Amino acid sequence: MKAARFAMHSARSLSSVGLVPREVELFSRYSPSPLSMKQLLDFGSDNACERTSFSFLRQELPVRLANILKEIDVLPDRLTNTSSVQLVKSWYIQSLMELVEFHEKSPEDQKNLSDFVDTLIKVRNRHHNVVPTMAQGILEYKDTCTVDPVTNQSLQYFLDRFYMNRISTRMLMNQHILIFSDSQTGNPSHIGSIDPKCDVVAVIQDAFESSKMLCDQYYLTSPELKLTQVNGKFPGQPIHIVYVPSHLHHMLFELFKNAMRATVERQESWPSLTPVEVIVVLGKEDLTIKISDRGGGVPLRITDRLFSYMYSTAPTPVMDNSRNAPLALSSESVEKLPVFNKSAFKHYQMSSEADDWCIPSREPRNLSKEKMAM
Amino acid sequence: MKAARFAMHSARSLSSVGLVPREVELFSRYSPSPLSMKQLLDFGSDNACERTSFSFLRQELPVRLANILKEIDVLPDRLTNTSSVQLVKSWYIQSLMELVEFHEKSPEDQKNLSDFVDTLIKVRNRHHNVVPTMAQGILEYKDTCTVDPVTNQSLQYFLDRFYMNRISTRMLMNQHILIFSDSQTGNPSHIGSIDPKCDVVAVIQDAFESSKMLCDQYYLTSPELKLTQVNGKFPGQPIHIVYVPSHLHHMLFELFKNAMRATVERQESWPSLTPVEVIVVLGKEDLTIKISDRGGGVPLRITDRLFSYMYSTAPTPVMDNSRNAPLALSSESVEKLPVFNKSAFKHYQMSSEADDWCIPSREPRNLSKEKMAM
Repeated sequence: MKAARFAMHSARSLSSVGLVPREVELFSRYSPSPLSMKQLLDFGSDNACERTSFSFLRQELPVRLANILKEIDVLPDRLTNTSSVQLVKSWYIQSLMELVEFHEKSPEDQKNLSDFVDTLIKVRNRHHNVVPTMAQGILEYKDTCTVDPVTNQSLQYFLDRFYMNRISTRMLMNQHILIFSDSQTGNPSHIGSIDPKCDVVAVIQDAFESSKMLCDQYYLTSPELKLTQVNGKFPGQPIHIVYVPSHLHHMLFELFKNAMRATVERQESWPSLTPVEVIVVLGKEDLTIKISDRGGGVPLRITDRLFSYMYSTAPTPVMDNSRNAPLALSSESVEKLPVFNKSAFKHYQMSSEADDWCIPSREPRNLSKEKMAM
Repeated sequence: MKAARFAMHSARSLSSVGLVPREVELFSRYSPSPLSMKQLLDFGSDNACERTSFSFLRQELPVRLANILKEIDVLPDRLTNTSSVQLVKSWYIQSLMELVEFHEKSPEDQKNLSDFVDTLIKVRNRHHNVVPTMAQGILEYKDTCTVDPVTNQSLQYFLDRFYMNRISTRMLMNQHILIFSDSQTGNPSHIGSIDPKCDVVAVIQDAFESSKMLCDQYYLTSPELKLTQVNGKFPGQPIHIVYVPSHLHHMLFELFKNAMRATVERQESWPSLTPVEVIVVLGKEDLTIKISDRGGGVPLRITDRLFSYMYSTAPTPVMDNSRNAPLALSSESVEKLPVFNKSAFKHYQMSSEADDWCIPSREPRNLSKEKMAM
């Protein structure tokens, strides 16, 4: 790690000519180590050891950043070369280099531990605008060429992984910052951002109210909530899970905004609005939250697009040529038939290969080296 | 086609030594021609022409049979060599050869047309037990070795295509038989097996009653039906679609049996059974039928298996080792992280290639050469 300091200073200039420091290469050779919820809780328990967390993160964060940097490098040149993607890349390289510097520093020195927290805060803030900047890069790329379906699929694959990687690194950084920074601002019953007794119904009601307020402002009306809860695991008791309430709130808020907009716009001329129905069920293994509305639904024809970044980041309405075909209506009910060709043949030729996602098949290594007491 | 007659006679013996007649090779070079619902209706309209249907089917059926035969040939040897799969294969080859014979026969001769209907009936009956026989083959194969996940996925891919192919060929044969055979047994308002005004709610009620009868017999009790219909396309009117009622009935019957079994078994000690709820919505483009029950649901962990043939054809309970792992409970909530490796790299290297399903992007050729008046 002797070269770390030098390489850091030149990260921006290297990146701008398409080069990456050798640290990226080095750390990309490690696979990310997925943590279990139990391990995340242990880092924040009474036995929590800041030195252990420091030692784990100075290695793990560069590994995760380097792994995704390698994927950015295999994107189409016209995308990687946009100023937005170059900017995102420089942030990742800069942060990686700053974190790698701590490999030279002893966890026994309190100053180093506190510098590390400061660096994590700096890194977290630097990456604040990664999502809109990457979206801007996609838009710039789409302006330069027509994106074929295969490239579209590759980008979808990349962005799924890129955002999952980002959520995972921010989660790790936030946990360390919240648990070990001097200014304790979090909820004392939480472990970092994790609520070991997250009240699901309260989060649903809160997200609903936030969405309702926006809806009232915009439309001067809003639907009510009809909530049903079933605790199949502990009948009659309120539903509690170990979860990050802010993540749950974020997802629900987006879904409620969609449900309310659809309801209000569809039922404009109705005497009253139908409620948005939510059913929360805690089963033996899973929590299910089902949201339904009478907002008209989404045609099957475009359900594929619901999770497509290429559609949802589009600022201009998408040209859907299939709707303009003179006989489009009758060609919609056409048999879907398998055809034997090279593409089909390939499916039978796949060799057994490594999974491109890390999920340990058994309990991950106990990195905290502390006794686990859950 | 001179060789057809000779080749037919030797189909069984060729197949048993792993050879296929050259007709299979020949017809597999054509892609299947998907028909639209409109074309299927036209074949049964007043202008319907038996000669056109004859000429189309003597070519199209061998093409569809040959295409799927080629896929059987690339399955693992240990599967193809089971007596069950050999039997299925011999049926397909036999039927292909019998249909190819009609290439030598004139559509202008009424005798040929009526022989053709007889052959279609013979072929249809020959293939009656394809599904259980193929399932038996899978079971025999599973007995010979441990099926790895990649092979499992290949088999899933194959069986999806194999059964879709089978539905499509049976549909074509049935339409011709029902429309052109002398003994008119079908519903006079139907076109073959297609009901141009299929009463969806009536089919739902009928399938529910059939399932209820079975449920009552077995459990001496059964849940009620709570049905809600919303016609978003023609508000207030009953819901009618162009569909094959027997197919709809078949699917609903299976789902109702599942819903009833889950309800009765879960609510054994409850004062009364909750109803099975069905909501039918006709939107501008789609018909949606949603069935819900309070039977306890399916854990997320095993939802992948719901459509897996390898699980559902299993006669013995599946060994789920993940449940026996000493620390299985805590390893279930583990981060899922992308890792950059060869498998991930491949996703960005895919070249644009032919789709392995036939779906015409525009109106398929007008094979009936009749004026379409829909």
